[in-house]
Amino acid sequence: MKFNINEANKIALERMQKANTFLVDVKYAKEVIPGMDPMTIGHAGPPIKWEDMCGPMKGAIVGAIIYEGLAATYEEAESMAASGKVKFISNHSMGCVGPMTGMITYSMPLLVVKNETFGNYAYSTFNEGLGKVMRFGANDETVIRRLKWLEQVLAPAFKKALALSGPINLQVLTAKALSMGDEMHQRNVGASSIFLRTIMPYIVRAVEDIKQLQEITDFITGNEQFFLNIAMANAKATMDPVKNIEGSTIVTAMSRNGTNFGIKVSGLGDQWFEAPVNMPKGLYFPGYSEKDANPDMGDSAIVECIGLGGFAMGAAPAVVQFVGATSVQAAIQYTKDMEEITEGSNPSYQMANLNFQGVPTGIDIRKVVETGLLPVINTGMAHKEPGVGQIGAGIVTAPMDCFVKALIAFGELVEE
Amino acid sequence: MKFNINEANKIALERMQKANTFLVDVKYAKEVIPGMDPMTIGHAGPPIKWEDMCGPMKGAIVGAIIYEGLAATYEEAESMAASGKVKFISNHSMGCVGPMTGMITYSMPLLVVKNETFGNYAYSTFNEGLGKVMRFGANDETVIRRLKWLEQVLAPAFKKALALSGPINLQVLTAKALSMGDEMHQRNVGASSIFLRTIMPYIVRAVEDIKQLQEITDFITGNEQFFLNIAMANAKATMDPVKNIEGSTIVTAMSRNGTNFGIKVSGLGDQWFEAPVNMPKGLYFPGYSEKDANPDMGDSAIVECIGLGGFAMGAAPAVVQFVGATSVQAAIQYTKDMEEITEGSNPSYQMANLNFQGVPTGIDIRKVVETGLLPVINTGMAHKEPGVGQIGAGIVTAPMDCFVKALIAFGELVEE
Repeated sequence: MKFNINEANKIALERMQKANTFLVDVKYAKEVIPGMDPMTIGHAGPPIKWEDMCGPMKGAIVGAIIYEGLAATYEEAESMAASGKVKFISNHSMGCVGPMTGMITYSMPLLVVKNETFGNYAYSTFNEGLGKVMRFGANDETVIRRLKWLEQVLAPAFKKALALSGPINLQVLTAKALSMGDEMHQRNVGASSIFLRTIMPYIVRAVEDIKQLQEITDFITGNEQFFLNIAMANAKATMDPVKNIEGSTIVTAMSRNGTNFGIKVSGLGDQWFEAPVNMPKGLYFPGYSEKDANPDMGDSAIVECIGLGGFAMGAAPAVVQFVGATSVQAAIQYTKDMEEITEGSNPSYQMANLNFQGVPTGIDIRKVVETGLLPVINTGMAHKEPGVGQIGAGIVTAPMDCFVKALIAFGELVEE
Repeated sequence: MKFNINEANKIALERMQKANTFLVDVKYAKEVIPGMDPMTIGHAGPPIKWEDMCGPMKGAIVGAIIYEGLAATYEEAESMAASGKVKFISNHSMGCVGPMTGMITYSMPLLVVKNETFGNYAYSTFNEGLGKVMRFGANDETVIRRLKWLEQVLAPAFKKALALSGPINLQVLTAKALSMGDEMHQRNVGASSIFLRTIMPYIVRAVEDIKQLQEITDFITGNEQFFLNIAMANAKATMDPVKNIEGSTIVTAMSRNGTNFGIKVSGLGDQWFEAPVNMPKGLYFPGYSEKDANPDMGDSAIVECIGLGGFAMGAAPAVVQFVGATSVQAAIQYTKDMEEITEGSNPSYQMANLNFQGVPTGIDIRKVVETGLLPVINTGMAHKEPGVGQIGAGIVTAPMDCFVKALIAFGELVEE
């Protein structure tokens, strides 16, 4: 087959630039995911079998089974997970994204993002906060109790608040956050704060119970990464219309299940191109080191697909100290490198300190292979044992093999 | 007299670097200002007579008289102001600061900032919000009603919330805001948002009346400049311990009353050195131009004395588009120029995108006169007619004559 690759990639970039995304609602997984049932568990990254899963992923799945009330004990939950009775499914196949282990189950509430330009929807879970949380593989009683609170208290409040506020424009909010030094992956303090300012007047109108209002206020104000999951759903809603453009070599998804890194490519449909996931380099919290860390994990690398996270590090000088980049100049260099492997830039997302230049947007697998420059991803590090939680933050690259495999597959398509 | 000027200035800088400032309370002017009575009105800038005041200052004073219930009509208030019955006093003489016209009257609530290192206090009013407000000279019924609401609803709520939260560390909050691209004069979106996140959990515990809670939430979330007045009180609390260091040529205050610009110098006591105020250059809101603007006004230039505002423009690339600087490079150049006229830098207030360098701190009148580089101030522009409000934002310089006069006075002191 003969393609006009450049033309196809231009269309891909235009669709990303034309995205007009809004946070519109909160719905439960069971309401919106076709075929969702209590025995289905969504996870981050490309599809993976129980026996191939890393420690935190297994820990999260055991917790998710307990959360859904499918098993009474951790032992029972684990044997159920290993038995083949539970169906594991890649979040991306359900139109969803979740950070780190990315658990999405039947009863969980999802933030609903709509891309008005193309009419598509994307979903993400609520961010659970820091410390011992299911996304890092924790599964004890406090984790389950918090998830139940998210389901029964926070989600209904947010649903009501969003009905009062109307759709929240995520292009505008993201642009503001970039001007506040966020890169929207490991630094979301600006976005989370602006989001708080946007939603709080409606929260105080939506929640009648004063104790619940206090709990909700504490929860939102206590987490600088609250916005991360919304940023991820924004990115997913932006990327989905880019899928299946004939002849396009633009990456539509990057994700990791803690074992493998996978990418999808517009002109190559729904196939994942996978390689063993890399280990992030960065800064560990006191008492931890690389030997404690699980390899890279989560659907969150979807934000890099739209030019945020590692790609926008030049806009976020203060993230340098958190992810362990050597200097502000190094952070800017990451952004400049990413310009080499992308189709263009997105004027909706400007970097103030780079003279309001748009973020590098649309990863082209050809350029990655040609230049040898790998997509950089800002990421959190999970402890490799389930249940310990986050132990650091750093920078990781996508493995070259994913891009080589995809380019070979693309070559075969051209030869057909 | 013989002074070791360099040694004295080193002490001045050290006192600024050692400041440890906290927002601790809300109190009424009548409670904390010695000699305050209903017939006293504090204003921004050096002392000024009624007949020399600009339009917005006169408008604000008329409004302040109405607010205090001293007159029933605007005509009555104006003739009272002109009669000499009302005592006008420079805010700085009362330990206070206020933006633009800077009105401080008997019944007004004040934010209380304590500098723990030196034990001193500074006070500022609450920020009224945008649009038609007294600080820009507006004085209609909506302005007076809002001020009464600040006094009777917002202030008691804040007092309770601060009692619950305990002192709020302004060094830490300011450092975070700088990392979010604020320069703390014309851009306070990061600071205001972080402050919201800090105070909101206590506001929802302090306010029992749901309608008041909604009003308060709307008010705080609706104003990106909410933090400005706190930043000013922080700066005032930082600068006051720098006063009266024998032999020091460091500026301890810069302020404008809309007619004159005045500076105070550490080794020269409480004397103001004044010159006619300059006209800011910048961007006007649609429909307005320089011919509508009042010259520079307000106590807010105190933030430049501690290295923020125009001095920290290099940390705030996004403010460029608001104040009309030509480019991000120009913003960085302002900061570099200010390094030429300051004693040193403050490591508490780092600029992330300038590789975490501290802001230029401690304006030395000798260096201003020697280099010809004038302190740059980021400022709002008020309409010259009272009551219209803000019509733009821009950059203004302190007039050279203030520094020349101060240096001459210093020279006379040395010769004595």
